[in-house]
Amino acid sequence: MGDQSPSPLNLVVVGGVAGGMSFAARARRLSESASITVFEKGPFVGYANCGIPYALGGIIQSDEALILQTPDSIKARYNVDIRHSTEVIAIDRENKTVEYKTQGQEAKSMKYDKLILAQGADAFRPPISGSNAPNVFTLQTIPDMTAIKSYVAAHCSKSVAVIGGGFIGLEAAESLHALGMKVSIVEYMPHVFPPVDQDIAEPIHAEIRRNNVDLHLNARVKEIVAPIEAEGTGNGSSHVLLESGEKVPGDIILLVVGVRPRITLAKTAGLEISRFGIVTNAQMQSTTDPDIYAVGDMAETTNSITLLPQNLALAGPANRQGRLAADHIFGRDVSYRGNVGTSVCQIFGINVGLVGPSITSLHSQSPNLDPEYVTVHPPNHAAYYPGATPLTLKLAFSKRNGNILGAQIIGKAGVDKRIDVLATAIQARMTVYDLEHLELAYAPPFGSAKDPVNMAGFVASNVLRGDTEIIHPEDLTPEILDQYQVIDVRSPGEFARGYVRGAKLAPLNELRGRLGDLDREKKVLVYCQVGYRGYLGYRILKQEGFKVVNLDGGFKAVSQGGFGLLVG
Amino acid sequence: MGDQSPSPLNLVVVGGVAGGMSFAARARRLSESASITVFEKGPFVGYANCGIPYALGGIIQSDEALILQTPDSIKARYNVDIRHSTEVIAIDRENKTVEYKTQGQEAKSMKYDKLILAQGADAFRPPISGSNAPNVFTLQTIPDMTAIKSYVAAHCSKSVAVIGGGFIGLEAAESLHALGMKVSIVEYMPHVFPPVDQDIAEPIHAEIRRNNVDLHLNARVKEIVAPIEAEGTGNGSSHVLLESGEKVPGDIILLVVGVRPRITLAKTAGLEISRFGIVTNAQMQSTTDPDIYAVGDMAETTNSITLLPQNLALAGPANRQGRLAADHIFGRDVSYRGNVGTSVCQIFGINVGLVGPSITSLHSQSPNLDPEYVTVHPPNHAAYYPGATPLTLKLAFSKRNGNILGAQIIGKAGVDKRIDVLATAIQARMTVYDLEHLELAYAPPFGSAKDPVNMAGFVASNVLRGDTEIIHPEDLTPEILDQYQVIDVRSPGEFARGYVRGAKLAPLNELRGRLGDLDREKKVLVYCQVGYRGYLGYRILKQEGFKVVNLDGGFKAVSQGGFGLLVG
Repeated sequence: MGDQSPSPLNLVVVGGVAGGMSFAARARRLSESASITVFEKGPFVGYANCGIPYALGGIIQSDEALILQTPDSIKARYNVDIRHSTEVIAIDRENKTVEYKTQGQEAKSMKYDKLILAQGADAFRPPISGSNAPNVFTLQTIPDMTAIKSYVAAHCSKSVAVIGGGFIGLEAAESLHALGMKVSIVEYMPHVFPPVDQDIAEPIHAEIRRNNVDLHLNARVKEIVAPIEAEGTGNGSSHVLLESGEKVPGDIILLVVGVRPRITLAKTAGLEISRFGIVTNAQMQSTTDPDIYAVGDMAETTNSITLLPQNLALAGPANRQGRLAADHIFGRDVSYRGNVGTSVCQIFGINVGLVGPSITSLHSQSPNLDPEYVTVHPPNHAAYYPGATPLTLKLAFSKRNGNILGAQIIGKAGVDKRIDVLATAIQARMTVYDLEHLELAYAPPFGSAKDPVNMAGFVASNVLRGDTEIIHPEDLTPEILDQYQVIDVRSPGEFARGYVRGAKLAPLNELRGRLGDLDREKKVLVYCQVGYRGYLGYRILKQEGFKVVNLDGGFKAVSQGGFGLLVG
Repeated sequence: MGDQSPSPLNLVVVGGVAGGMSFAARARRLSESASITVFEKGPFVGYANCGIPYALGGIIQSDEALILQTPDSIKARYNVDIRHSTEVIAIDRENKTVEYKTQGQEAKSMKYDKLILAQGADAFRPPISGSNAPNVFTLQTIPDMTAIKSYVAAHCSKSVAVIGGGFIGLEAAESLHALGMKVSIVEYMPHVFPPVDQDIAEPIHAEIRRNNVDLHLNARVKEIVAPIEAEGTGNGSSHVLLESGEKVPGDIILLVVGVRPRITLAKTAGLEISRFGIVTNAQMQSTTDPDIYAVGDMAETTNSITLLPQNLALAGPANRQGRLAADHIFGRDVSYRGNVGTSVCQIFGINVGLVGPSITSLHSQSPNLDPEYVTVHPPNHAAYYPGATPLTLKLAFSKRNGNILGAQIIGKAGVDKRIDVLATAIQARMTVYDLEHLELAYAPPFGSAKDPVNMAGFVASNVLRGDTEIIHPEDLTPEILDQYQVIDVRSPGEFARGYVRGAKLAPLNELRGRLGDLDREKKVLVYCQVGYRGYLGYRILKQEGFKVVNLDGGFKAVSQGGFGLLVG
């Protein structure tokens, strides 16, 4: 146990938040004798940066709640030397020293045996004219948040334009909306929350608009117009000018368009860097220098589903990488397994969860995996128990072997649970056939005897076994739709509220008696509301000799997913 | 696809709820031509019996909500012949016929090619004197529930004694309490919810009592005293007399002490039966007769963790077994994988979840698995996000190989998610080392960067790797406790609110400076509130040469788990 070497190991950490602090704590647990120093550029260490968007709007009421540790408490507990407000400005790899500079002091140097880079990522500031105006902010650190709060308080800002509809942008939008501000979101892409598919994002768009937040999609920012005379008046003349000519007002403007690994220090030191960050081996050692480790947002990682390199700015992986680097330094046989990109986000009343790549991304980047997917809309728990709400779950898998490739879920409740179950299944290399067998906890307030995860497994397995053939709404061009006779097996009441263009109504319970009405020479596209009755209709028609496909996800996938062109 | 044989297959199903209806629906999807008949003794088919306790007290407001399907709707949709209120009274295996009797009619017989027994289980009625009184009820079927409701309405019953503190007993107690009735629970064992350990049940006891429900543990029922003159008067003289002499009042008395497989029919037909139900192979075929399948509560299943036979009365497995039997009949290569016993229950404000055997059960029945466990108390989501509540998670694993053997969790929220993740991990044959790596979804409203499942994995792996040695409160007899110098590394404020008998206070942040105060010759038992600071203390002391163990689960495990004898 512990470190028995005569001269204690010098461990130097650059960056004192998730990955860096996890490293330091683990290193101390493994060795009482090591010298551990953490340099942090900012004034705080070990804070909860994932809470920043919530503290911004007072959902987390006390900013102090985010500051989990202080330099003194860390020193007392872990005997780690914290140098906050101190920047490491150079690495001398040959002499194994770092040069650092505390605010207002001369630069000094410190020796290391092992150097851990955990600098995280910078909020990206795109070269937009006007983006340096005093009412334009990024939102990544506690000082960022404090600056926004001070500005809003001092100028009585009443509106905000949030540029960027990712995780942080959406959380910040909700948080500032909760403060009573008029919020607009400006997103460059056709949908918010870029890691998911368009059809999964559509209900998020509806929820954002339902909460009276203005949403601008496909919106190219031309410039930020924050006239000096407007500064401090909150008079509403400050705005984001879109290329369309539209003006999106914002007394303050948030620039939350993603992050970029902080690679300057590593680059100057000559470490190998890709466009995803510092390149490391599975022990998180720089491929250039084994005495330098890189962890967290600044390190390139491998997606363990697609085996493609990626940059992943998530706290969980950062923490685990920091811990693993410490284990490796102290002689443990450890390897990082890559990431699957498990994430979840709450946006007003909707939750969206994701693991693995989106279908769009699988098709474009990993066609070699032979991706397919199915869509189900089960309730979050037994429909007969009060408060049940629907989920939409897209499950991606490989047609070749049934391996699960990813999942996207939206709904009001129970999203995080199913994403975590599917993330576990993916990491265990389960197939969709395994999901059929999966025994999950059932009581009416929590789930169903056939859990949504089982349902998705049943449908996917049915597809792979050839028990059903499906077609996705996104593949239904008008030309393809015209090749089918379209049969709606729902009830007349459901049909009356909207149907697929050209559909004829033949309620499932009457279908066996109405086969004579169908054209035996023409392919049948059968559908219901969510897919199950369509599947039953498929089984009847198929066994009666028809050529038939079932519409994946049913009419709900069409109407909710933004496929308005398909609606009759 | 489908059944192409000249004479259609005759499929006869006995029992029309979970397993039987799942069989029938799947069989029809696989074959339009098969003849499918379902005999159901009761008046309803395809109903949600898991909802009965909730409908009893009006949490589910409409009884009709439980009746998911009617004979007519099933006939229309699945072309399945439903014979409700009809009992199958004999099986003639030689001639492959069943004899059945509809209420008020002559017995008839029907031919089968394959017979599916899905009769479920009967509520057990122990031979207690007085248990046939008109105010004594079981609670398993819709008629049971209707009878209780009618009685309560007609007699203005104001109190209930629930005999049995399992799943159904607890759900019924809560449900009747919600109606405003005075509720008492009478449990034979030292704790309610028998599948979990005593220390996990203790917070449930506290929650039950906090809700003004009387709880009688270790309570042997002598007799039920329901005097004729008391019937219908609701005068409070009806009661359960315990062997202790105590009288537990109940205008009505619920007898919910478990279920017994309905094996009479199968036994008479000469099928192999164990004390867990009808014995089947992995295709759910009777080991005696391959043309007879048994599914659901009446079939013996194998626990896939312990490989021991068991009877499991849960809806999810019943449904999957029914589906699997149909798959097998239609030529699919399928095998049932056994069960892990994943379950969850809501009791007032507490949720309790379970997968695999309890520690008690592992020690007594599966010592060959070399079981060990760890206890953690993490919050359900980021502590700094509003509304965080603590979980208690016991993770069982094999000391031999780190295989996960089970988990028990209690808490106010997030229990079902972690149980499902761990159930998935177990079914994927993951080890506790895999839990360290598991990438789960994190955003402050949903979890933590280190999820409770990761935390349990870290602690268990630390134990297996020898990075920490632990001792459980249940193993701390007074004699064993006396062998240690007990060091409490919490704050003085925490110490003042209660401590382990004989403990000395040495707050963690001061521990390094106070090593001189300790006796180097005597083993140290270190502890904190939940275990993490104790682990840090362990690491410091161990590396400084002390013999030391950390108290698993900390002082919280002692105080919450009912180990009052250990408190100083």
